[in-house]
Amino acid sequence: MIQTPVIIVNFKAYLESIGLSCLNIAKAAEVVYKDTGVQIVVAPPATEIFKVSSSVEIPVFAQHADPVEPGAHTGAVTVEMVKEAGAKGLLINHSEKRLILADIETLIKKARGNNLVSVLCTNTPAVTGAGAALSPDFLAIEPPELIGTGIPVSKAKPEVVLDSVNIVSRVNPQVKVVCGAGITTGEDVYAALKLGTVGVLLASGVVKAKDPKKVIQEMAEACLKFQEEQ
Amino acid sequence: MIQTPVIIVNFKAYLESIGLSCLNIAKAAEVVYKDTGVQIVVAPPATEIFKVSSSVEIPVFAQHADPVEPGAHTGAVTVEMVKEAGAKGLLINHSEKRLILADIETLIKKARGNNLVSVLCTNTPAVTGAGAALSPDFLAIEPPELIGTGIPVSKAKPEVVLDSVNIVSRVNPQVKVVCGAGITTGEDVYAALKLGTVGVLLASGVVKAKDPKKVIQEMAEACLKFQEEQ
Amino acid sequence: MIQTPVIIVNFKAYLESIGLSCLNIAKAAEVVYKDTGVQIVVAPPATEIFKVSSSVEIPVFAQHADPVEPGAHTGAVTVEMVKEAGAKGLLINHSEKRLILADIETLIKKARGNNLVSVLCTNTPAVTGAGAALSPDFLAIEPPELIGTGIPVSKAKPEVVLDSVNIVSRVNPQVKVVCGAGITTGEDVYAALKLGTVGVLLASGVVKAKDPKKVIQEMAEACLKFQEEQ
Amino acid sequence: MIQTPVIIVNFKAYLESIGLSCLNIAKAAEVVYKDTGVQIVVAPPATEIFKVSSSVEIPVFAQHADPVEPGAHTGAVTVEMVKEAGAKGLLINHSEKRLILADIETLIKKARGNNLVSVLCTNTPAVTGAGAALSPDFLAIEPPELIGTGIPVSKAKPEVVLDSVNIVSRVNPQVKVVCGAGITTGEDVYAALKLGTVGVLLASGVVKAKDPKKVIQEMAEACLKFQEEQ
Repeated sequence: MIQTPVIIVNFKAYLESIGLSCLNIAKAAEVVYKDTGVQIVVAPPATEIFKVSSSVEIPVFAQHADPVEPGAHTGAVTVEMVKEAGAKGLLINHSEKRLILADIETLIKKARGNNLVSVLCTNTPAVTGAGAALSPDFLAIEPPELIGTGIPVSKAKPEVVLDSVNIVSRVNPQVKVVCGAGITTGEDVYAALKLGTVGVLLASGVVKAKDPKKVIQEMAEACLKFQEEQ
Repeated sequence: MIQTPVIIVNFKAYLESIGLSCLNIAKAAEVVYKDTGVQIVVAPPATEIFKVSSSVEIPVFAQHADPVEPGAHTGAVTVEMVKEAGAKGLLINHSEKRLILADIETLIKKARGNNLVSVLCTNTPAVTGAGAALSPDFLAIEPPELIGTGIPVSKAKPEVVLDSVNIVSRVNPQVKVVCGAGITTGEDVYAALKLGTVGVLLASGVVKAKDPKKVIQEMAEACLKFQEEQ
Repeated sequence: MIQTPVIIVNFKAYLESIGLSCLNIAKAAEVVYKDTGVQIVVAPPATEIFKVSSSVEIPVFAQHADPVEPGAHTGAVTVEMVKEAGAKGLLINHSEKRLILADIETLIKKARGNNLVSVLCTNTPAVTGAGAALSPDFLAIEPPELIGTGIPVSKAKPEVVLDSVNIVSRVNPQVKVVCGAGITTGEDVYAALKLGTVGVLLASGVVKAKDPKKVIQEMAEACLKFQEEQ
Repeated sequence: MIQTPVIIVNFKAYLESIGLSCLNIAKAAEVVYKDTGVQIVVAPPATEIFKVSSSVEIPVFAQHADPVEPGAHTGAVTVEMVKEAGAKGLLINHSEKRLILADIETLIKKARGNNLVSVLCTNTPAVTGAGAALSPDFLAIEPPELIGTGIPVSKAKPEVVLDSVNIVSRVNPQVKVVCGAGITTGEDVYAALKLGTVGVLLASGVVKAKDPKKVIQEMAEACLKFQEEQ
């Protein structure tokens, strides 16, 4: 299972997210995990899951899976495929890969049936509340207008995070909440935890960083600092 | 506003749903409304909304609207368009026109901002619960596998309806629940009301009937019978 | 049938494209047609087709139709619907409503089977060549990057138009070519005709103009000027 | 480059298409290639491309790539990703993964720019003609209604194959044509070559076979027989 606090690194489809660079970022995350004990998850592209999961000991998530059963679905990436490749979890409904509502329920159930952790991405507190009713393991609230901006949701829109945490605790308190969009520093991660989340989902802040390891390290230390203060 | 119990007739895209036949079904519904006082709503195709809303006094709903603002969207049917054409409400996320989760919230808000009644269609109790968190005016639970079969959800899968009614009363009790799929008789409507819904959403049961007026009449009488018994 | 040169006005989903404003633009186009004899086509939103086609004598086209047969397709706008509402033709695959390749063939055939004129929109000369093989009545080449800019394709990218005209004459010379994107003046229309097209497809240049009638008039006069010179 | 005749095995998303079973089918294909010299291509799921391409010497194709550039596209499978994983080519627009027309051109160009072989799938002769104008390396004509049936297109609808071969030779003779749908025996492959194609695209006929190697072997021998007769 996934410990909290957790830092989930979404590799997206950047040029830095494939091949040697992909592996290097994943290995940097593993080093930080081993140094700090803070849970770090990497979500490389589908084509890289096998290589990454064979090379590092931290959990590997898929960025998406198609809501279909195994069968005649040319070009599909199924839950079964990502699990076979070594994934331990699954992002669902990222703002760059939105899904229809019924398919979200299907995928959450399929993830559970395959012992994969599900992280449902949402865009507003109301949608987060709707998502909570579908019982994913994690909800990741990300205002799309902040994604990739470097303006951290945890500081620019703290009320969106707070309202999401509150609505989830009311609708389905077993679901854990992380937040994302614009997270690039340890300070942003600390602010996210202060707002009641159990971690962050981020992408370019690590993947496009000059020194990904340094950024992950700083974020892990922010998690440790937060934990010490509790 | 929409009184309950309510019978919502979705015209879909049948050949019978355009031109003179469309108008005749809408007028038959109006006659039954005037005879019985039971609320009946008709949802003709987008191209027929203006003609129908200009011809009958019962509320006309749109079957769908695209989740976009007015602008450069060739081929879109917007909330503003269906309102201008005379619609008083909107089906959202019908199983034949599924929407991504974030767009469902957008449409419910847009409907409210334009004084249109929103009817969010869902497929399972869990999805109904999710939908309730988005605060539509109505939720319409329809197991897709029963749509168009003539096997009424209210009799074949009463637990789906009951669970939906229960989850909505827990998540957001202000939202009213109707059910659909396989509804073809007054008896089906009566069973739906008995399960705690406030009405039905149906299509082929009326639109493809030999005598649509007779079917609507029978359904309206089932509503009256249910009301008398309360 | 549609005479050439032709000016096709796509109303898109602007606020100006519904209700009284929609009707006024259509009537302005009709006046210019009656004054000049130049063929003008109006393509209002689906909800307005009936009203416009009942009010003006110039041809009304639909902006889009879904590639399905009549049946259980909630929210669909079918070829049969737009024909019933009075449409004489159909835009297909506009850059704001792209279709999969197989559906484009389906729609062109359905348009022909229903005696509707088909206008297939394309974005590059190669795609125009592909489109020509599907035998629509018209091809409308519109570089998406110029749509809505006021920078006319006929002047900014004449080679795109010329290459499109040439490839069509090679693959399927019976198909007529119009061009669009950025067309706002009579001069732009004249330039389009000079490049070998038989007309233009435009939207905001007319619909968002302060005086739509004046713009259409100027464009019609450019057509007359071009014809006199031949 | 890809020699002809060619047998392209699309693994789709079957349970047999992942893990050990995936690798076994790919290795069986490699053995047949080494025995007969007949070109065989395998197209495993995205998650398996790296493993397969690292394990066999025959060309590995991707079943699909998303028409986007590297960047912030969570869940996308890009041309760059499948190339990095070892793919030498790409199926485009399979009937189970249809694409919009403009994106097909984009992908064919991206494949060429990345030195990947492009195989554009089409459903009718007219669409094949349209596809030819976009200059893929191969066109694969597959009537969707025969896919997975075991009724071979090369025998059930020879005219569809012949018309496709003819239209391609007229529109763009440099494009090679293969056919698919219902191909399960060497006889089907032989019939396909007799109709003027350079090979076949097939899936369940091999992947779901009790003995995939035996089927591939039989198909390769049919190719040799055809070649000897020329």
